[in-house]
Amino acid sequence: MTVPPNPPKLPNPANPGSRLDPWVASYAERAQGMTTSAIRALFSVANRPEVVSLAGGAPFVQALPLDDFADMTAKLIRERGVTALQYCTGQGDERLREQICGVMELSGIDAHPDDVVITTGSQMALDLTVRVFCDPGDVVFVESPSYVGALGVFSSYQCEVVHVMTDDDGLNPVALSEAIDTARLAGKKPKLIYTVPTYHNPLGITQPPARRAEVLQVAKSSGLLLLEDDPYCLLGFDGEVPRAIRADDADGVVYLGSFSKTIASGLRVGWALAPHGVREKLVLASEASVLCPSNFSQLTVSEYLATSPWLEQIKGFRELYRERRDALLESMEQMMPPGTTWTVPDGGFFSWVTLPNGLDTTAMLPRAISGLVAYVPGTGFYVDGQGRDAMRLSYCFPEPDRIREGVRRLSGIIETEMELIETFGPTSNSAPLSRRGPTTPSPELP
Amino acid sequence: MTVPPNPPKLPNPANPGSRLDPWVASYAERAQGMTTSAIRALFSVANRPEVVSLAGGAPFVQALPLDDFADMTAKLIRERGVTALQYCTGQGDERLREQICGVMELSGIDAHPDDVVITTGSQMALDLTVRVFCDPGDVVFVESPSYVGALGVFSSYQCEVVHVMTDDDGLNPVALSEAIDTARLAGKKPKLIYTVPTYHNPLGITQPPARRAEVLQVAKSSGLLLLEDDPYCLLGFDGEVPRAIRADDADGVVYLGSFSKTIASGLRVGWALAPHGVREKLVLASEASVLCPSNFSQLTVSEYLATSPWLEQIKGFRELYRERRDALLESMEQMMPPGTTWTVPDGGFFSWVTLPNGLDTTAMLPRAISGLVAYVPGTGFYVDGQGRDAMRLSYCFPEPDRIREGVRRLSGIIETEMELIETFGPTSNSAPLSRRGPTTPSPELP
Repeated sequence: MTVPPNPPKLPNPANPGSRLDPWVASYAERAQGMTTSAIRALFSVANRPEVVSLAGGAPFVQALPLDDFADMTAKLIRERGVTALQYCTGQGDERLREQICGVMELSGIDAHPDDVVITTGSQMALDLTVRVFCDPGDVVFVESPSYVGALGVFSSYQCEVVHVMTDDDGLNPVALSEAIDTARLAGKKPKLIYTVPTYHNPLGITQPPARRAEVLQVAKSSGLLLLEDDPYCLLGFDGEVPRAIRADDADGVVYLGSFSKTIASGLRVGWALAPHGVREKLVLASEASVLCPSNFSQLTVSEYLATSPWLEQIKGFRELYRERRDALLESMEQMMPPGTTWTVPDGGFFSWVTLPNGLDTTAMLPRAISGLVAYVPGTGFYVDGQGRDAMRLSYCFPEPDRIREGVRRLSGIIETEMELIETFGPTSNSAPLSRRGPTTPSPELP
Repeated sequence: MTVPPNPPKLPNPANPGSRLDPWVASYAERAQGMTTSAIRALFSVANRPEVVSLAGGAPFVQALPLDDFADMTAKLIRERGVTALQYCTGQGDERLREQICGVMELSGIDAHPDDVVITTGSQMALDLTVRVFCDPGDVVFVESPSYVGALGVFSSYQCEVVHVMTDDDGLNPVALSEAIDTARLAGKKPKLIYTVPTYHNPLGITQPPARRAEVLQVAKSSGLLLLEDDPYCLLGFDGEVPRAIRADDADGVVYLGSFSKTIASGLRVGWALAPHGVREKLVLASEASVLCPSNFSQLTVSEYLATSPWLEQIKGFRELYRERRDALLESMEQMMPPGTTWTVPDGGFFSWVTLPNGLDTTAMLPRAISGLVAYVPGTGFYVDGQGRDAMRLSYCFPEPDRIREGVRRLSGIIETEMELIETFGPTSNSAPLSRRGPTTPSPELP
């Protein structure tokens, strides 16, 4: 064995105490940003039952008809177990892909099952799309703020994320167009526009049709792929399903859908609907990543869609979430200190709350959790430190009385914080937590 | 809107006929190698019932006690459905991680549940490890030949794969050491050693303990992480479980395990056992990729391990696969043309067959499938065109009589091919199929 000319720095696993992680010099560049945020540590505390968590995006699966679900699954295994328990194709089960096309019809989408790829939750569809499209440094345009889990994906592929001005009608097309031009003028390579037009996470707002058309037009004229993430579309409180952007353009949009919020998140069944050439790449990327999605989960979803009154069940979810949204809004109206503002969601799981007087929600979080209420600080939804005075409140999981109690606690915390500021000045500089958003999502924050 | 200085090449989705994929100029560099191989198209034909497929690596899930499995799953949903159908942590269910440590004890591994990450099949554990460690151009050392699904992962992260000489005792440590030195002398960056020491896919061989120690020593002295992929370890025909390399080194090995071959592949539950710092990165990478693995699948596996005689069931699998291995070996002994050689597996799913006279298995495949028998050509297990005279035969799925019939058909095809060569000379130059191995695995080829 010859001695290599440049002996590499060897890890020293025999003495791990000398350096915390002996492999630290061996990681890929993309892994450098994969660090645990202080916020994550706090959330492990926030999951205690005595804390009212307005943080998580977990659906209320307690409302599912579990006995029926159990019987259905048992029947599936008895009758089609040798298929359900076996590998399937990388693209996913054919019948389920047909059923998914039926689900997307509700959003005005006319799609062919061959253009659907089933994934381990729509998070994986997002991951695969970025894997297929983005080289390090490529620019992705997102809302201000944007879904934390998407920011984690972009970060893990070393994309540059540009937050585009977002108003009451969602992503602003003029600002989007300017941001694309600015990036190109700077010699950068714009690649994707990522948007959640319906019941936005975390904003809770929904983009009107005319605005969607303008955003699509910007995407087309600039030659960028539009990535439409649409997990909440069937959860509108008026029962209407907004027309997806994808419904008006089959060639320029990758559409991401999910059963996590409408059936059950624990099944991890989502999908991408993509232009044909893109779909081919997504299947190959999926096979490299997981060989194939779980047939067990897929056939369970397929059987549920085929044999249960699933639209009625979703109606039940809508009513349940509407009641909780009302509990949140009403109690905020009653209890939040003056100057606090929030969005009024017409569907989905979230409201975006902005605090007055330069309050810092990241700095305040430890005190909130001590006060037995949790939220997600606004900075988590930005890559650039914006969102310090904002927070995401979710109403999907706690019962209405718990939501009211949570808002009561939170209002008290905010009032105390405001009094402290009036007395001692802003505390934000002494904030104990990193301002950077989490670089990867936590499952507590879907 | 100003005109960008360098107008990008715009896709022209309005006229897709002008170019097959309008997004072709937008893909990431890593996606360039993601192409569908001609072999994949053939396999869609090979799945017809009249074809004896000795190609796929699908376990014989028909042997599972499906009624018991159905009852168990129904009970799980009734009693713990609100957990099974909900998001979980990115690292995976705690009880299952404890049970996994118990499973690994059978391979001599003493592990802590906190160092286990549960993934969507062990394929995903492999994908995440490469994601965390490998920059484009980093060198990965693998057996000659190596698992096609691993080659697909390395390719998708733009790694350079170096096949190391592999003999009857598996990966050769002297050759490995030389290959690492050669790569470093060439200014390259070695990163990982990937090995399947037990019941190798596709070779079917098992590395003896002394050789394992030597390979580990090379990994340690060169500062490279050893990636030990061990899905078949409980499927040894003598009932013994070979001691894993990981059993002798907790700090330098990432160990990949799977329930796909011992319980059911359709559940997609695998895992990585990693040194602590690496485990942290893997969890963050997993969360970016899928948020969390399916709790439904995880709790099903956990319940199965807790309530069923799973080791007895695996004993049944072993006996079944042993009978099929015997059917394969005996019929090859009786029918294969002189000069054909093959490995004799002591466990797992595969035998590696080498043909005489420079026969080209890739070129022969269409004729084999016309003759109603399928195999995987050897080139699929190399990145560099080696393996032309070899093929992988799997005995895991077809019943013994079908295996014998498959070998009868295959022997006939080979004999015809040999006669053609004697008459007209080698046909390999007129082979209709690409010689490059598939750059991504197909689920038909786990």
